[in-house]
Amino acid sequence: MPKLNMFNSVSLDGYFTDANNDVSWAHAAPDDSEHMEFIAGNAKGTGALVFGRVTYEMMASFWPTPMAAQMMPEVAAAMNRAPKYVFSRSLQKADWANTTVLDGDPAAEIAKLKRGDGPQLTVLGSGSIVKQLTTAGLIDDYQLLLCPVILGSGRTLFDGTPGRPVLKLANSRAFKNGRVFLHYTT
Amino acid sequence: MPKLNMFNSVSLDGYFTDANNDVSWAHAAPDDSEHMEFIAGNAKGTGALVFGRVTYEMMASFWPTPMAAQMMPEVAAAMNRAPKYVFSRSLQKADWANTTVLDGDPAAEIAKLKRGDGPQLTVLGSGSIVKQLTTAGLIDDYQLLLCPVILGSGRTLFDGTPGRPVLKLANSRAFKNGRVFLHYTT
Repeated sequence: MPKLNMFNSVSLDGYFTDANNDVSWAHAAPDDSEHMEFIAGNAKGTGALVFGRVTYEMMASFWPTPMAAQMMPEVAAAMNRAPKYVFSRSLQKADWANTTVLDGDPAAEIAKLKRGDGPQLTVLGSGSIVKQLTTAGLIDDYQLLLCPVILGSGRTLFDGTPGRPVLKLANSRAFKNGRVFLHYTT
Repeated sequence: MPKLNMFNSVSLDGYFTDANNDVSWAHAAPDDSEHMEFIAGNAKGTGALVFGRVTYEMMASFWPTPMAAQMMPEVAAAMNRAPKYVFSRSLQKADWANTTVLDGDPAAEIAKLKRGDGPQLTVLGSGSIVKQLTTAGLIDDYQLLLCPVILGSGRTLFDGTPGRPVLKLANSRAFKNGRVFLHYTT
């Protein structure tokens, strides 16, 4: 049965987007081939991707473009090829390849997917979805890439999550560009 | 000339206190002698401590007590012995040993201390002071102890900091209890 993983870049003050839903600060890394290999490897191993609507639309406007193919060819190919689920009650159509729109309750839909025999699931971005799935205890792995930038304002991933869940640190890795990869399990 | 260091425990969602200014979650570590040695060593090396009023009053109500002496004898002794500065315009007296109340602008007062030949300075807690000193570019070292807990709400250290400062990762260390120490420089 598939596990559910969450991957996000976060700032030193705990934000995954700035106040305008912009995440370009997370990609402004100095050249670091070690780090790029890690990101590409991570993207390759991704099974299906899970999004809220806001993150989905942002990613759908970037990854299929020639610019993305040029900047990060391996990651772009993996992102475009992966099966994708987006939670939305308003989205009528989703043009990004291999997308399924789910209009039910995110926790219920994910619980159903986790009982099936589909691919591993990874949530990217999608703060409100992460909060709902954390609250429902459905996320198995939390992967954070901690960026050494102070944003001053923005959106946190876990806003309003009750119960103060305590995670287990599975492993961590510091990169030369100052980013720290942190992998927690429940 | 003394450098200014900031040390704080933060949650996975970037908060240094919960919404009620409580930090007990940061101390709820499972027994870990390696980690306790590190904390005690860190406290021992502390020169002077710098606080905002809220953090000062919280710490002043704990560290001088017999309970603190029993729970963490080395850290308590170091905390009580250290010279302390608290920024406040309302505080009339400060009973905790070796305290100086500063009622001027925090950035100006700290800049003056940094031009002198006093001991190293460390800010603990004190979100609004950390923000002001970060904005003024006065903090040399940022030390974060990342705790594997999701608080869901609370106060961030850098609320409203402008300019998106990017720090350099100097070193990091993962502890068996799931905490990760992160040391950044400017």
